[in-house]
Formats: sequence, structure tokens, C-alpha cells
Amino acid sequence: MELKAFFLNCTLKPSSEVSNTKALIDVVAGFMKEYEPDIRVESDRFTDYNIKFGIANDMGDGDQWPHVLAKIQACDIFVLCMPIWMGVRSSVSQIVIERLDGTTKVVPEGDFGQFQLYNKVAGVIVTGNEDGAHDCAANTLFNLAHFGFTIPPNTDCYWVGDAGPGPSFIEADGDRHPYTIRNAKLTAQNLIHGAKMVKQMPYPVNVKALNMEMMAKNQQIWQEQAKLRQRLKDQIKW
Amino acid sequence: MELKAFFLNCTLKPSSEVSNTKALIDVVAGFMKEYEPDIRVESDRFTDYNIKFGIANDMGDGDQWPHVLAKIQACDIFVLCMPIWMGVRSSVSQIVIERLDGTTKVVPEGDFGQFQLYNKVAGVIVTGNEDGAHDCAANTLFNLAHFGFTIPPNTDCYWVGDAGPGPSFIEADGDRHPYTIRNAKLTAQNLIHGAKMVKQMPYPVNVKALNMEMMAKNQQIWQEQAKLRQRLKDQIKW
Amino acid sequence: MELKAFFLNCTLKPSSEVSNTKALIDVVAGFMKEYEPDIRVESDRFTDYNIKFGIANDMGDGDQWPHVLAKIQACDIFVLCMPIWMGVRSSVSQIVIERLDGTTKVVPEGDFGQFQLYNKVAGVIVTGNEDGAHDCAANTLFNLAHFGFTIPPNTDCYWVGDAGPGPSFIEADGDRHPYTIRNAKLTAQNLIHGAKMVKQMPYPVNVKALNMEMMAKNQQIWQEQAKLRQRLKDQIKW
Amino acid sequence: MELKAFFLNCTLKPSSEVSNTKALIDVVAGFMKEYEPDIRVESDRFTDYNIKFGIANDMGDGDQWPHVLAKIQACDIFVLCMPIWMGVRSSVSQIVIERLDGTTKVVPEGDFGQFQLYNKVAGVIVTGNEDGAHDCAANTLFNLAHFGFTIPPNTDCYWVGDAGPGPSFIEADGDRHPYTIRNAKLTAQNLIHGAKMVKQMPYPVNVKALNMEMMAKNQQIWQEQAKLRQRLKDQIKW
Repeated sequence: MELKAFFLNCTLKPSSEVSNTKALIDVVAGFMKEYEPDIRVESDRFTDYNIKFGIANDMGDGDQWPHVLAKIQACDIFVLCMPIWMGVRSSVSQIVIERLDGTTKVVPEGDFGQFQLYNKVAGVIVTGNEDGAHDCAANTLFNLAHFGFTIPPNTDCYWVGDAGPGPSFIEADGDRHPYTIRNAKLTAQNLIHGAKMVKQMPYPVNVKALNMEMMAKNQQIWQEQAKLRQRLKDQIKW
Repeated sequence: MELKAFFLNCTLKPSSEVSNTKALIDVVAGFMKEYEPDIRVESDRFTDYNIKFGIANDMGDGDQWPHVLAKIQACDIFVLCMPIWMGVRSSVSQIVIERLDGTTKVVPEGDFGQFQLYNKVAGVIVTGNEDGAHDCAANTLFNLAHFGFTIPPNTDCYWVGDAGPGPSFIEADGDRHPYTIRNAKLTAQNLIHGAKMVKQMPYPVNVKALNMEMMAKNQQIWQEQAKLRQRLKDQIKW
Repeated sequence: MELKAFFLNCTLKPSSEVSNTKALIDVVAGFMKEYEPDIRVESDRFTDYNIKFGIANDMGDGDQWPHVLAKIQACDIFVLCMPIWMGVRSSVSQIVIERLDGTTKVVPEGDFGQFQLYNKVAGVIVTGNEDGAHDCAANTLFNLAHFGFTIPPNTDCYWVGDAGPGPSFIEADGDRHPYTIRNAKLTAQNLIHGAKMVKQMPYPVNVKALNMEMMAKNQQIWQEQAKLRQRLKDQIKW
Repeated sequence: MELKAFFLNCTLKPSSEVSNTKALIDVVAGFMKEYEPDIRVESDRFTDYNIKFGIANDMGDGDQWPHVLAKIQACDIFVLCMPIWMGVRSSVSQIVIERLDGTTKVVPEGDFGQFQLYNKVAGVIVTGNEDGAHDCAANTLFNLAHFGFTIPPNTDCYWVGDAGPGPSFIEADGDRHPYTIRNAKLTAQNLIHGAKMVKQMPYPVNVKALNMEMMAKNQQIWQEQAKLRQRLKDQIKW
């Protein structure tokens, strides 16, 4: 079974600048190739693309999201990688999450009608010069599970320094930080195993059928609630 | 394959009071039994036990955590269930997370030396009269993945009302809220499938070996850092 | 103007054990006394009290919350102090927040009908051996502002070590960590000035009147919505 | 005392599209003018500007942040306004927070050497079709307090619908949602009073002096830590 892993680097910096997050990506990707020599690993920097705000799968006007989305759709293992800014994930990674929301709106036809990103696994890489990695990882893994990814255990790999200003990952020799290295190995191994697991035993759930059932009821309820709001407009003195 | 599911209700209320969270547990548990008739489902309310603060696996003095922990260790599917208080998960659920941290400190002997809660799946149930479900779910699923659980897609089931005060789950007929019901079905189906997946293809990672490798280096580094702090104490004018 | 500051330590540990959070409290309290010699500073450990889960102002059965609440009501400066557990604030501090919610339910009579904790300022102290301080501080300061406290700038004082296991505040000489010390000084100075500010120029808002106006409309709306839910029960095939 | 309020709308949408967040801004701004007729209120949509990723105060290449920053520097009351996306604040609002970080790096000369945004107050406006408002408000108010803003009580105004898909603020008649209206009034009144408070009694703290003291020690410590890392490179077998 040949696996594909895709790391998307959500640094704020253009490719002309050194990215600490990229340095940690290289560590995790290296372990992946060590554990699974046949794996195909690719990594991109999202700021290299023409990025649009929005939640449609194609915002037009030179939007390059469809190009990035194609890579996510093609991979078995997706790792969203980000720096911390002001205690939370970078704006660039938040854009990726907003754009991925579009994948749940257009559920492909097929036997199961699942979201496009089912039967894949996801992990997260976070760097920052201090505090915030848990918040980045928790929100990101949760969002990715919402889109269809399975989250194996211990697939968050991060480095942060102690409280306040200080050296970042590269300068601080983060690639020799024992905890970060252990997590890099756990992340690599468990993502590889998880990907094999979901490929071999894909989920049988029919999301589309459940969605249609939900929306049929929602339409009826929303219609009645709209009428009620109309009545309340007159009934209550605003 | 006979599966066991364990729902732990982290309401603040004693069993003498009606719990909205319990009402949503019943919905999800009902779907589990529908999809997998042989499943054994159990649900407990954590406030029924003698709860101690701490992170040891047994805090002594009548601590009943070991009893609850045994149920978590015995199940294949663990669902942590909680009300929202002030926008985040209830104190009672935070205690469960703190106590579960102890399971990563005593890694059992064995071929793989994994944390005790590997090769199980986890989901989350959240109720509140408004806002906060995403924060509860994200932190909780992330913490559970840290302890060894695998997180299948769409295994968060929640109900919240609109902004501000208002009726809670039971009074608001949350068991007929189409979105919550859809998520209950997704949660039930994907947890069942996920549990089969990890039982059939358990993770091969050796956590203990990675931990020992990490700690050996940490000891050397911490010793040198402690010496450096001693030197800085004299060197810098505080 | 004589000011009173109250630090509430939400460590999981009983008073028989050394608390890292208490060590940082002593640093901040020391600066307060340096900047404002007449200030009266008190600090308590919440686990020393008989703690009950719930949101009423007195849960009965030996509940000692009323005793703690009286100290919070009597102070001008309240500092909620906590360790990080699994990336978020300790369960003990979450209990304090849940109990404080009760103060907004019983709005005292008076000219302004404000929540009991208006015209006071609040800050936060956080310690952990790694990551999570921002999440603790953000949620806690936000919750305290909801209860009526004013939040001056830079009144969060925290210490965390770098990623993963490692020494805690005391062992790591956190009281000589320049960033933490700077924040301790900012926290002390700005809380003192903030307290003078709100005492000298108390808020004129009438919360009770706004609450009554809101609840009058809510009652009408909720009644109509309950009727609608009844109709939908029959109208939709569940 | 003439006050200036500035609302920055961080919707993902361009001005050609209707913004729910803008509709709630209008409500709060309306109450401000009612309570303080002389107030000058301005509101901007951030996507109308040429936005760059980064943390410098001017990223060059047509960067229009300096124009927006000038408005924030000129106001007494700053309200950051945002939609929720995937449970957290929009990417556009995260960019604002990242850019504002630059204001703490260049501390202006002067008697007090405070961050540029001291002696101003801040609030937050959030809309979403469901869950996430608390997380948006907590992180945003905390970040703004870090930059120098004072946070008066109850200055978060939000509207969200119940769990799952559903109508947004405008369609759901959010401007007649009693809780949101009450919070709009609290937000308006308390921001106005808070602004007067900090103008009349500005903070006396000297941030620059504290920063210089911190950095002098940091430089010595970081130098020694860098040397230690060099030694560990050789000493430990990696």
C-alpha cells in the first residue's frame, strides 16, 4: 500500500524567509520516510499561493485554493502545520480551515455520500516561541475530524519555548528537544498506521442520507420559526 | 466482536436531579444499540462517586476514581459527556481529564508499552443552554487523543440553544433537534466502526521505548540547566 | 484610599503540599505592597475549604463557598490563581468560576442594580510546567469581566516552561524569570491603579433595569416558542 | 469630553456583500450615540483594505494596515467585530490581532513609555449562526488587554443561533433578540464610561523601563543558554 502524506505550512512568511514551522515539518517527514520508505511526502507553504477569504471551494479571481485542495484530496495523511500568534493558530491556518469547510457543503455522489475527506488521517505541527500549542492543536484536530479525518492518538507535534520572548525553534535547537522528537516519532508512526487502518476498513456511514433527513426537517422547522418571528414582531412592543 | 461503550456524565448535579446531559446520552446510546445490537452500553454519573482532586491513579482516603478508571479501561468506546459552564467544560469533566492524566504516567509492561488507553475510540457529548460546545469538544477530544484514544470523524454530539438564557435540552425538545439527532447518529456509527478498526488493527508503536529514550536525554539536559541556573543566580544582579 | 487585594489559589493540592502557584502569588503580592504600602493583601487556597459543585450562592451541607465569596465581595482587587492541567485551567479554578456565576443571579437592590462584583478589578496568575497559560488567562479574565470586574491592561502574570515535561516554577527559579517578573510588576501596578479608577469613577449602568426589560420580552418569546414546539411535535414525522 | 469609537468589521466578505456582523455593529453604535450624543462613531470593513500577513507595523508593497492602525490609535473606544468560523474567530480578525502585535514592539518615547494603545478601552462584537462566541470574545479581549486596552465589564455583544445550521443574525431578527440587545446596551454604556475613566485617570506605569530591565537580563541569560546548547550538542549522543 503506497501512502501519500501532505504537509501544509501555514507560516505568515513568504518562501523567501526561513520558517521555523518548516524545520519541524522536515523532522516529522524524515521519520515518516524512515518508518515507511515507500511513502510519498510533499510539503507546501500556503502563502506561496493566491489566497482568498471565503468558504466556497473556488472563490474565482485567480483563487489557487482548488490547487491546494486537490493535494489534500489526493493524500492519505494530512498534516496542518502552523506557528502560534498571540496564543492561537496563525491567520493563515485559520484560512485553510475556513476553506476546508467548503468540502462539507458539496458531498460527492456515491455509495456512501461521505464528506470528501473521510477515510484519511490528520495530524498537526505547531511551533511558537512560547505558549499556545495546545489551543492550536485542539481546535485544529477537532475541525479536521469535523471534515472527515480520523485522528490517531498522539499525532500533535509541537515545540514552544518558556514564557515570554526568546529564541524560536531553529535557533533553540528544537530538533534536539527530546519531547518534541518523541512526539515527532509518535506522530509519524501513528499517522502511518492510522492511514492503513482507514484505507483497509473504510467507514460505512452514509453522511448524505443523514444530511438529507436533517435538512428536510430543518426546512419545516425554519419555516414555522420564521412565521413565529413575524408574529412576535407585531405582538411585542420593541 | 462484542463491543463495550461507557458514557461518563460530568454534570454538576447529584443523581437526585434531572440531567440534560443524561437525556442526550440516552439518545446516542439508543442509536448505538440500534446499529450494533450486541453492544454493551453503560453510563455513570461522576458526581455519584467520591471524587478527589489530583493526578495520581489512586489518591487514597476513599477515592473512588480507581472504580471509574476500571470501567474506562474495560471499554472499547468511551464517551465523555458534559454540560457547558461559562463557555467551557464543567469542572467535573475537567477533574476526569486531570485524573486520566495519571494513566500516561504508569505505562504497563508488555510487547508495546503503550499508554493504557490505546486501541480504544472516544467521542464527546455536550449540552448547554447556549454557546461553548466547540470549545468543550475540541479540548476534550484532544486530551483524549493524548491519552491514547483514536478519534473517528464526527463523534461530537451536542445541543445548545441560541445566545443567552433560555430552555435547556430537555425542555427545548433537543431530542427532536435535527442537527443534534444527525450528529448522534454519526457519533454512534463512527464510534462503533472506529472501535472495530482499532481492535482489528491495533497500533504497533512502542511508546515506552520512546519515553525512555526521551527521559534519558531529558535527565542530562535538566541537570546541565540546573547548574546553569545556579551560575546565573550569582552572575546576574537580581 | 485603602485597597484590599484577594488572591485565590486554585491548585489541586491541599495546604500540606508546596504549591508553585502560591510561590508566584507571593511575588505579585510582594510588588503590590512595594507599590502601595497601605494595601491589605490576603491569599487563600480553595482546596482548604469544603467545596461543593453547583451554581447557587450557598449549596448547603457545610458548603464553605459563602465564606470565600464574602472575601471576594469585600476586596477591590481579585486575582484568580491557577495551575494549568492538560492545557487548560485547573478543575478547582473552574469550580470558582461556576460558583461566581451565582453572583449574577441575585442582583442586589440599590440605585444601580449592578452585579455584586462591579467596580472591582481582576487579574490572573497561572503556572504550569508547559503550555496553556494563554487559554487559562483568556477564559478566566473574560469570565470575570462577565461577572462585573474591570480588566486593566497586562494583568495576567504567568510562568510556563518549554514544551513537554520539566521542572515547575519553584524548581526552575521562575521568580528570576525576567518576563514573569516584568508581568508581575505590570500586574501589580495596573491592578492598583485600576482599582482606584473604578472606585473613584464607578460605572453608572443600571444592570437590573436592563435585565428586567430583557426577561419581560424573553418570557413572551419563550412561551410562543414552546407552543410552536408542541405544534411541530405533531406536524413533523419524527 | 468628545469621544471617538472605532468599529472594525472582520467579516470574510467584501463590501459588495451584506454582513451580519455589520448589522450588529449598527445596533451597538446606535446605542452609543443614544447614550453619548457627542460621540464620533466610525466603522470600517477590513477586507476593503489591502491586507498583508505579518507583524511589522508596515509590511510595504501597498500594505494599508498603517491606515487602519492610525484609526485605532486615534480612537478612545475600539470594538473588534467578527463572525465565527468553525468555532473560533474569523481569519480576518486574527490578522488584525497579529498586526496589532506590532504596536508593542515599537514603544513610543515619552514620560511613561507605554504601549501605543494604553488608556483606551475595547469591546467585541461576534455573530455566527451557532456556537463559538465565547471563544472569540475571550481570546480577543485578552489579546487587546495585552496590547494596552482596558476591558470594562460586559463589553462583549454577540448573537448566535442554536446548534447546527440555521438563519444568521439578520434573517433571524437578531436585532430583536432580547439578550443580544441587553448586551448591546451594556457594551455601549460601559465602553463609554470606561473611556472617560481611563482618559481622566491614565495609567502611571512605565512599560518601557520595565521592558528594558527585562531585556537586559534576558540577553545575559539567552547568551548562557546558547552556550549550554552548544555544549549539549557534543555531550549528548543524538
